[in-house]
Amino acid sequence: MRALEFDGQIKYRADYPDPAAGGGESIVRVRLAGICGTDLELTRGYMAFRGVPGHEFVGEVVASGNRAMLGRRVVGEINAGCGRASCRWCRGAMSRHCPDRTVLGIIGRDGAFAEFLKLPDANLIAIPDSIADALAVFIEPLAAAYEIFDQTHLARDRAIAVLGDGRLGATVALALNAEDHRPVVLGRHREKLDRLAALGLETRAQADEKGRFAVVIDCTGKSAGFGRAIELVEPRGTIILKSTAAAGAELNLAPIVINEITVVGSRCGRFAPAVAAMEAGKIDLRPLIDGEFPLDDWRSAFAAAANSAAFKILLRPS
Amino acid sequence: MRALEFDGQIKYRADYPDPAAGGGESIVRVRLAGICGTDLELTRGYMAFRGVPGHEFVGEVVASGNRAMLGRRVVGEINAGCGRASCRWCRGAMSRHCPDRTVLGIIGRDGAFAEFLKLPDANLIAIPDSIADALAVFIEPLAAAYEIFDQTHLARDRAIAVLGDGRLGATVALALNAEDHRPVVLGRHREKLDRLAALGLETRAQADEKGRFAVVIDCTGKSAGFGRAIELVEPRGTIILKSTAAAGAELNLAPIVINEITVVGSRCGRFAPAVAAMEAGKIDLRPLIDGEFPLDDWRSAFAAAANSAAFKILLRPS
Repeated sequence: MRALEFDGQIKYRADYPDPAAGGGESIVRVRLAGICGTDLELTRGYMAFRGVPGHEFVGEVVASGNRAMLGRRVVGEINAGCGRASCRWCRGAMSRHCPDRTVLGIIGRDGAFAEFLKLPDANLIAIPDSIADALAVFIEPLAAAYEIFDQTHLARDRAIAVLGDGRLGATVALALNAEDHRPVVLGRHREKLDRLAALGLETRAQADEKGRFAVVIDCTGKSAGFGRAIELVEPRGTIILKSTAAAGAELNLAPIVINEITVVGSRCGRFAPAVAAMEAGKIDLRPLIDGEFPLDDWRSAFAAAANSAAFKILLRPS
Repeated sequence: MRALEFDGQIKYRADYPDPAAGGGESIVRVRLAGICGTDLELTRGYMAFRGVPGHEFVGEVVASGNRAMLGRRVVGEINAGCGRASCRWCRGAMSRHCPDRTVLGIIGRDGAFAEFLKLPDANLIAIPDSIADALAVFIEPLAAAYEIFDQTHLARDRAIAVLGDGRLGATVALALNAEDHRPVVLGRHREKLDRLAALGLETRAQADEKGRFAVVIDCTGKSAGFGRAIELVEPRGTIILKSTAAAGAELNLAPIVINEITVVGSRCGRFAPAVAAMEAGKIDLRPLIDGEFPLDDWRSAFAAAANSAAFKILLRPS
């Protein structure tokens, strides 16, 4: 099959081996895949990943042990736990944290930048016809944004800042907005801030707002974002960390202690709330799409995704 | 009066100006003061402090606008808020986080390594006769340990590690123990671990216990302790940060996000729960005392406090 392979650098391959489904696994033909900041970080060494990257996708099931799924349009939870009865994470509906998990296109499992991918049957979620492909491809990142609501209570009368005006910040801010929070997006890119404002978000070029926010959600994708979040959050406030980056940063944690800040690491989320929000028409992320490329034009796609003026770039493998 | 003054280095002074009480302030004659890790950090540049350090004390009120306090044996909350009605921190019984606060011996207010100190009347807490001076001097650090219970719910069936076998770790572990938790103290100093074991604590030389603890309380006093805490805590676990250090550290925060760790910065606490625990006989920290020195022998006292084999060193200013 056609696929992008990362082995220290990305290569387009027309002859990558087709995935072979094991017991309880389905094969999905990928219709559309999104490029995420994590994919860019993978190419910089994050997770020491080797194989086919890509974890945001919508596709159709072409082979499955579960016959009811055949031909269905699906998205998929990207974490595949070990599934053993002895594993408390898998047992407790928290296979996202199974220590022996594979993660689609991130840890030990080929991903969505390919014609086909495989996932456990249990990871697949059929999506209603009302959600078009170009919207469905956002379900995975939107689920990650909705994870914030599963982890913390956000009071509606407190100031919330989304730090970073990239695709992650935009997704998180629009999710908050869809749930009747009124976050302020703090960013450095005038053009993107203007586009987010046009989508109904309050935006601001980063100014001196030291200690003004009860909640700061770091979506900068950079380790240094954390230091900025520490400056922006008020005493006893909460920093939600969404950024994963390959590189570390020099940090002094004393302000965390002195101001009794709570920091909540936040990664993947349940898909159901994201699907429900889309189905209810509460959120439409398609205005964030800035380009769609075939697999063999991956260089243009990745260059576009790395461009600081762009939100979401899609790949169309099939 | 006699006092220790820090102006880049510590000096003993026999002629330091007596404190003059403003409106609503009391003067306390210091009977006993404890040396804390923060005091050692101050001498390394933490908070850019200048003046008389020291914030753990027991003393007696020698002057006060509140006549009922005259002659009483007291301890004192170390944070003095601005007290303005317009300050939401002071208004909300959270003057510990008032941005304009002074902090005894730490920020803008001379501290307890002196014959006399001054604090707002409202900061002073009379202590019952049943709590001897040598125990009362631990109320401030014990209140900081009890702050953990105010901030987080610790389930009694989950594994808790106290990281660090110094005075801070010992105080926190004994507080947990007094409240029927069974923490494991992880440390590197055989002799101190043995002493803590003799006080009824479970202790362990640091071994490979990666991801084994639901809660890790960093009491190392070093920025690098945070990295170790990240290794020890399980996915979705909690790190409670108690250490404040002048120096930063190179950190990669990706594991916080990937494992969805919650980090809770924890500083000073209410005194009442600490006083109540002592009065109920639930906790006795006097076995941690490793020496008591007069003010003018501060060199010996600070050397003893910096010795990695020691827990608590006291100064007797009067």
